[in-house]
Amino acid sequence: MANNNKMPNKASGGKRNSKRRYYTYRKASKKSNVVPQKPKEKVKISFLGGMNEIGKNMTLYEYENDMFIVDCGLAFPTADLPGVDLVIPDFTHIVNNQEKLKGIIITHGHEDHIGGLAYLLKKVNIPVYATKLTIGLIKGKLEEHGLLGSAKLVEIKPRDNITLGHFNIELIHVNHSIPDSVGLSIRCPAGIIIQTGDFKIDTTPVDGEMIDLPRFAEYGKKGVLALLSDSTNAERPGTTMSESSVGESFEVLFRKAKKRRIVIATFASNIHRIQQIMDVAESRGRKVAVIGRSLENLVSVGAELGYLNIPEKILISIDKIKNYTDDKLVIITTGSQGEPMSALTKIAMGEHRKFTITPNDFVIISATPIPGNEKMVGNVVNALMKRGVEVIYENMYEVHVSGHACQQDLKLMIGLVKPKFFIPVHGEQKHLAKHAYLANSMGISSDNIFIGDIGNCIEVSEDGIKKLDNVPSGEVYVDGYGVGDVGNIVLNDRKHLSRDGIIVVVVALDSENGYIVSGPDIVSRGFVFVKENEELMEEAAVVAERAFKSTYDKRYRDWNAVKTKIRDDISHLMYERTKRSPMILPIFMEV
Amino acid sequence: MANNNKMPNKASGGKRNSKRRYYTYRKASKKSNVVPQKPKEKVKISFLGGMNEIGKNMTLYEYENDMFIVDCGLAFPTADLPGVDLVIPDFTHIVNNQEKLKGIIITHGHEDHIGGLAYLLKKVNIPVYATKLTIGLIKGKLEEHGLLGSAKLVEIKPRDNITLGHFNIELIHVNHSIPDSVGLSIRCPAGIIIQTGDFKIDTTPVDGEMIDLPRFAEYGKKGVLALLSDSTNAERPGTTMSESSVGESFEVLFRKAKKRRIVIATFASNIHRIQQIMDVAESRGRKVAVIGRSLENLVSVGAELGYLNIPEKILISIDKIKNYTDDKLVIITTGSQGEPMSALTKIAMGEHRKFTITPNDFVIISATPIPGNEKMVGNVVNALMKRGVEVIYENMYEVHVSGHACQQDLKLMIGLVKPKFFIPVHGEQKHLAKHAYLANSMGISSDNIFIGDIGNCIEVSEDGIKKLDNVPSGEVYVDGYGVGDVGNIVLNDRKHLSRDGIIVVVVALDSENGYIVSGPDIVSRGFVFVKENEELMEEAAVVAERAFKSTYDKRYRDWNAVKTKIRDDISHLMYERTKRSPMILPIFMEV
Repeated sequence: MANNNKMPNKASGGKRNSKRRYYTYRKASKKSNVVPQKPKEKVKISFLGGMNEIGKNMTLYEYENDMFIVDCGLAFPTADLPGVDLVIPDFTHIVNNQEKLKGIIITHGHEDHIGGLAYLLKKVNIPVYATKLTIGLIKGKLEEHGLLGSAKLVEIKPRDNITLGHFNIELIHVNHSIPDSVGLSIRCPAGIIIQTGDFKIDTTPVDGEMIDLPRFAEYGKKGVLALLSDSTNAERPGTTMSESSVGESFEVLFRKAKKRRIVIATFASNIHRIQQIMDVAESRGRKVAVIGRSLENLVSVGAELGYLNIPEKILISIDKIKNYTDDKLVIITTGSQGEPMSALTKIAMGEHRKFTITPNDFVIISATPIPGNEKMVGNVVNALMKRGVEVIYENMYEVHVSGHACQQDLKLMIGLVKPKFFIPVHGEQKHLAKHAYLANSMGISSDNIFIGDIGNCIEVSEDGIKKLDNVPSGEVYVDGYGVGDVGNIVLNDRKHLSRDGIIVVVVALDSENGYIVSGPDIVSRGFVFVKENEELMEEAAVVAERAFKSTYDKRYRDWNAVKTKIRDDISHLMYERTKRSPMILPIFMEV
Repeated sequence: MANNNKMPNKASGGKRNSKRRYYTYRKASKKSNVVPQKPKEKVKISFLGGMNEIGKNMTLYEYENDMFIVDCGLAFPTADLPGVDLVIPDFTHIVNNQEKLKGIIITHGHEDHIGGLAYLLKKVNIPVYATKLTIGLIKGKLEEHGLLGSAKLVEIKPRDNITLGHFNIELIHVNHSIPDSVGLSIRCPAGIIIQTGDFKIDTTPVDGEMIDLPRFAEYGKKGVLALLSDSTNAERPGTTMSESSVGESFEVLFRKAKKRRIVIATFASNIHRIQQIMDVAESRGRKVAVIGRSLENLVSVGAELGYLNIPEKILISIDKIKNYTDDKLVIITTGSQGEPMSALTKIAMGEHRKFTITPNDFVIISATPIPGNEKMVGNVVNALMKRGVEVIYENMYEVHVSGHACQQDLKLMIGLVKPKFFIPVHGEQKHLAKHAYLANSMGISSDNIFIGDIGNCIEVSEDGIKKLDNVPSGEVYVDGYGVGDVGNIVLNDRKHLSRDGIIVVVVALDSENGYIVSGPDIVSRGFVFVKENEELMEEAAVVAERAFKSTYDKRYRDWNAVKTKIRDDISHLMYERTKRSPMILPIFMEV
């Protein structure tokens, strides 16, 4: 499987052909091209995943007959996908090319990078390469899907190399909001490609290991064909604050809380944040209890694998908090995004089974709302305040820092890697555009910058970036156990139903002659209070019967025509009377 | 009706009793209260409107047998109110007290202050007092509802006084994002109350008239019992930028656009913004076309009433833009909040009937996303960028300023008015809390600050603020023509339907013996692609029949019990197979 050798620059001997495994980038000759040149080697990159952010959930690299994937994440559904639980990438293109697939590399353990993996492995059981913590988190996911036994998981370390056919990939340590994150140096005969993965530059990281900028710089010196870099914060000027600064804020706030109980909401996966909370809690003599399954899981995985250093006897069960006074407690909870079903929301609404908020609580929301969640977070803050609780949120103190590089850091990365071609990834169109602008301002010509979209497939060589035909891609909706069985028709029905409800018109027909035996009966849901509109429903029955009789023809028995007429006439009636358009569902039963 | 006299400080002679109409505030005696004092006069304030912002949509003042209302606005439904068009205040308390009602005063022409008026006037046709532009906009609303003939509209000016029973109210000019906005000085025997209305302090307003701070200061000198002040921006430090600064940004951006066509999205009601766009367009020799009914309406009302000074021949119809080159055009459009049905969204998606965007367009979104709209605005920006359009949005340039006062301005208002009691209004709980904190930091004791909630009724006198029983209040949903006929049951049904759809189970029964004659037939909508799940539907029919037979008892014919059993069994089956919980609707027909 993986060759975890530690000699990044030594070729491992090609069995399939004689091409050099490692490519050293040379500046393009400035001489005029009188002498016909050999065509340049090409590598293909396809952007498969993401709802509207390319290169986030899934990227595919292809050189001749070798393919490998970077990341396989999920997206959480937006409000226009009612009932959908998760959104995963379309695997069609991968399944169609499975004989070429050599493996998948996961850059870090966030949901948007690992959450689709279980669904992928059910289709193609390829080896999965990732660092220790990431593997630990992946195991949890696979266990839920009963895949732990069959999956081929390969644990690797930063600076390790993986050989996948003609590709040789080195992992490079980066800082991010979860430990053990890596960027990639991807080498093949076409050249070196650097994919940063999600990253920030933290000069004082909580775990002491700064991003391996020297390694990025070494590749820059060798010559990099293309850089794919994280665009999340491309709109934000300056540099991203260090995670350590949050610890300092916690110290200030713990003092400010005085004798009150402290409740801190944060992302479950932010182990460094949790570490800092525990450290400050210990120094103030407070016990720590966690609420929320994902947090409990993270704390146990993090501690087991050595990423979380839990001070002795500090952790207590939430059921035991009644044995301690408020000034001896810190509660860590999920729900920092105001998610309706999360622990913090339930707490704020007074609906949590195990925890009751009081005015003697001091709540810190240690997160910034992800775009789209601002209102939900605001609602939780308001609800807590109505219960007399002091809440620290948003920018009141430095209680959250981003895990992504801001403009100055992004420019630093571009300056170190010095790529020939620049491909902003991991961001919405506006982020990519801004990131492209930054690269352009550093002297990369706009001809050498490619802003892609989901489904794009490009061919990169020293000669340039060429856009090929799009590959099958897009969003696949997971709803319950169903993967891909909810599509536009179903979603449009759900949206229609949610707007104005449904009116069911049932008619029993004589199977001999097609005459009405019973009904039409009218039943509605989600339309209007029925009792207040009995008259309207009676009128609807009359209209339905009239529509039936005017359209029904004994010879042809064109039930579709009759149903359409009923649908149209009742729709018309309802719109006229109520200015609403419920779904009309006629059902005929032959008896 | 109204006494539009111009002598604000002259009593107009009480007919009903001999109490002084105007109250002069004196500092509470510092002597010990050995001598029993006469109880202080009291004024009641009820907070009726708003979804989660008190004092925004509707406030009610009451002194003895006199009542009047300030504002009657609407709120736009949040995502958890599917299908609801508008949310208006509950008028129950007002209708119950209509014999006391003397009138309603509208502070300015925004939807959240005038949008519920037509619904109110249908219940109680009281006189409406407002300034010229506000009356102009109200007329448009009332016309839609066929109320223009019957409504009693009274146009008044700042510094005018209105006498409503024991109340005497003076209008005070304020700056805001719509012209002709006013705050109120409300005088009754209990004292002087200042309600700022929505305001900002603009020292260089586009129309030249700065907020009448001297008048607020004069009342401060006289002694103000209570101040109700706008809390919208209480979280923002510093002062709010002047509207004029946007004009300067437009000049920069018009140059930056060079030969491109310029498209500017803004709030329809921001007449000063539109004025500035027209002025800059004129100076650059560009014509202006507007898109969107609300903008067309505003431009025509604004121009007619003299609030918008349209340069000669600058305005052209959108149908005529083809006669001009791109560098000679500015298009003003609605949709700055990314609303799905708005003109800008349709343009971005390439779905607008009359306007096609091209890469030679330069789009300026002259607005900041209202909390909750960030994602929608982002989607529109992304969509435009995918079409190759340069987009100026959010904080890239000073293309939008708020219409509400920031912390420094709010403190200035408190400092000028020097109220005994402070009541932050017009904001969510978190804004009110912050505003209270500001007042407290200026020396107003927290005992003298009241943070209220919708439905609260308080009694204010020199002795203090007393909370009385809540009054009927809350949200009434308008859906189509229906006002209040959509409640929690209907909404919960809609939400249920939107998550997992519906399965209808129809059974035809013999009316004699109750045996199944036909069915069960299973029909689903919004659940899952039917073709892929024919087997599951057949199984559901079998389960339904089994449930029927196991529960049906010929003697009792308890149809509810049978339906419950069918509902439970099919729910169970569906959850087991799909992990989804569609609504199950059994319908029995006797034939």
